[in-house]
Amino acid sequence: MRLSKTFIKTLRDAPKDEQAKNAQLLIRAGYIHKEMAGVYDFLPLGLKVLENIKQIIREELNAIGAEELQMTALQNPEPWKATDRWDAKKMDVWFKTELSAGGELGLAPTHEEPLTNMMRDYISSYRDLPVLAYQFQTKFRNELRAKSGIMRTREFLMKDLYSFSPDEETHKKIYAEVEKAYAKIYERLGIGAETFETFASGGVFAKYSHEYQTLLNVGEDTVYYNKDKSVVLNKEVYNPEVLKDLGASEMTFEETNAAEVGNIFTLKYKYSEPLGLKFGDASGEKRTVFMGSYGIGVSRVMGVIVEKMADEKGLVWPENIAPYKYHIVAMGEKGTEKALEIYKGHEDEILLDDRDARFGEKMKDAELMGMPTRVVISDRTLEAREVEVTDRKTGETKQIAIDKFVASL
Amino acid sequence: MRLSKTFIKTLRDAPKDEQAKNAQLLIRAGYIHKEMAGVYDFLPLGLKVLENIKQIIREELNAIGAEELQMTALQNPEPWKATDRWDAKKMDVWFKTELSAGGELGLAPTHEEPLTNMMRDYISSYRDLPVLAYQFQTKFRNELRAKSGIMRTREFLMKDLYSFSPDEETHKKIYAEVEKAYAKIYERLGIGAETFETFASGGVFAKYSHEYQTLLNVGEDTVYYNKDKSVVLNKEVYNPEVLKDLGASEMTFEETNAAEVGNIFTLKYKYSEPLGLKFGDASGEKRTVFMGSYGIGVSRVMGVIVEKMADEKGLVWPENIAPYKYHIVAMGEKGTEKALEIYKGHEDEILLDDRDARFGEKMKDAELMGMPTRVVISDRTLEAREVEVTDRKTGETKQIAIDKFVASL
Repeated sequence: MRLSKTFIKTLRDAPKDEQAKNAQLLIRAGYIHKEMAGVYDFLPLGLKVLENIKQIIREELNAIGAEELQMTALQNPEPWKATDRWDAKKMDVWFKTELSAGGELGLAPTHEEPLTNMMRDYISSYRDLPVLAYQFQTKFRNELRAKSGIMRTREFLMKDLYSFSPDEETHKKIYAEVEKAYAKIYERLGIGAETFETFASGGVFAKYSHEYQTLLNVGEDTVYYNKDKSVVLNKEVYNPEVLKDLGASEMTFEETNAAEVGNIFTLKYKYSEPLGLKFGDASGEKRTVFMGSYGIGVSRVMGVIVEKMADEKGLVWPENIAPYKYHIVAMGEKGTEKALEIYKGHEDEILLDDRDARFGEKMKDAELMGMPTRVVISDRTLEAREVEVTDRKTGETKQIAIDKFVASL
Repeated sequence: MRLSKTFIKTLRDAPKDEQAKNAQLLIRAGYIHKEMAGVYDFLPLGLKVLENIKQIIREELNAIGAEELQMTALQNPEPWKATDRWDAKKMDVWFKTELSAGGELGLAPTHEEPLTNMMRDYISSYRDLPVLAYQFQTKFRNELRAKSGIMRTREFLMKDLYSFSPDEETHKKIYAEVEKAYAKIYERLGIGAETFETFASGGVFAKYSHEYQTLLNVGEDTVYYNKDKSVVLNKEVYNPEVLKDLGASEMTFEETNAAEVGNIFTLKYKYSEPLGLKFGDASGEKRTVFMGSYGIGVSRVMGVIVEKMADEKGLVWPENIAPYKYHIVAMGEKGTEKALEIYKGHEDEILLDDRDARFGEKMKDAELMGMPTRVVISDRTLEAREVEVTDRKTGETKQIAIDKFVASL
């Protein structure tokens, strides 16, 4: 991307009503635009980050045999009535709308019902099981208050995976495989060291569920962790009974804030039973499918990464999800010429600031935009046949021979 | 994809209420699933086709300097009130909904208003122009009747590009570039030879707009074309006045059905004026931005391709958008072993039917699913060290040495 060609620009100010650091920085740096409270557009750089996060998730889920599909936002009430989640008293985040032709529809806040319902067409025998199906889909949730920037919104991109097993034993194996895939995903996203699988309430049907919580000052959740962080609990299950159950009664725990970046649930028969998702076992007997669900909020995790990594100068992207690896600040006629020469053929790696602007402004924008490596190419660095390379995270600067830099691309 | 591992399966019947050939075949072949009238899920194979179409469009639009972003579905009424399109009498396809916190919202049927409104943050000077911004976004249209399968739905994937120019002259250049890009897109999608740029009504602000119409028996539109198809008109503008205007009064025209697969509009100041999108020209004077919009219905074009290419046996995909190039039918123990060996490392090219099923069933499914090339590997073909390769479109079959086939992958 050439900053002289793109429509995006850094903005001096975020909208006055925007209080979350993640959204303030992403708006100022030209990654997102605010439509209204809890509803954000993704501009070219923001979309690239989302796509990079999606690709990491996709690769790890495909590796465990999950299949990608795409359900719809518009929802027929019937399957939701069958599971008793259509009524706003049972699920309070519905957006509902009306068909011109008559009849109420909903906008999917999640997809257990339609996917379970659909699987009746594809699962009939034990030979069809297990199934792992996932999607990246826009979810709509009618939150009373939208806050925390892109960490809690009314329209957001979510990865939701669902598993369909013949029995609990198979389910447990799949659950363990997803746990491993999730660990790899957070590792690759650059937040592995501070993201913990956390015990949380299992709801009506299971003792516990698991959340993935990233330690974060402004996180909305409170978690408790032991010394080596091998046991982490959401506040909702931090009580003597649960600690005893987990064999953790003797441990001492510390309290901290955290942000949920994923969750995995054992659903058992919660949706398959009322929706009649059954299969014939080896003896021909009809049995109900055993289900699990596994979510990661894609735009949410992007917000969490911003909150964790950003510093007082602006965004700081981990290399795996940065829109571009290099931010080249080109100065002077020869510097710009050389920078353009280097840029050609490396458009996927380089954000090139070839604008007619002051050095100070360009350097400030490079820090705000947060690519992992800033590279200054100017008439002066060229005289020494060098470029100046700065690590965005550490601020460490090195002079590198220009040929060596080009060879490293 | 291995058919023994995927959850999708071919179905004997499409739902009884489904009348369109495209949806019937796509449902039976396991590409899509019907949620309700005009609302379809995309299963793994269907999603691959959509992604392939998107990638072709993306490459051609990026090549003319357009930038990809993603707007939201939820719409604030304000900009739509400013252009007088909020009222259902002015735009009859709105789905509307309510915020829990109070206030009406809409689901975007198109995105002129929010994008024009947003550009006020990014366009202020002639130096910022021109801008070409596009997205692949789910549109919601509250059609009274949903018919034609995935060719006309209530929720669909659309590519919409918008151009922002300082003046009509610049706009015309961009318009011509988009025309060239569109020609390349339809060519690469495999419908170039039967897709024609067609004169259509320009609405209030322009004399004409252009549609891209693919000749198709079941198309919803009627078009008129001259002998060499250099002049094609939508019925709505097929009258002596327009023919005279186009210098086509002496030509003879034939009538045919066609399906619209794209459109391009000169919007002039229709949205920029009421929304106040202005820029300072070189002399510092404020002027209104000159706009254009350019759409391609991604899921719609997929439906049109199915209608055009499919035969009595099932789907027929052009190679550029097929989910997989090869459909390998593996039979017998050794045949399946060899097929699996070939499959490894070529998972992106091969759909492998390694199910424990009868030969006839596998061959029928291969025809229904429509990959460009079917390859039979059985104990018998292996004895001759050959595979049997059949072109799905022509039905032409050849025996090819197995090593030669593997080398061609």
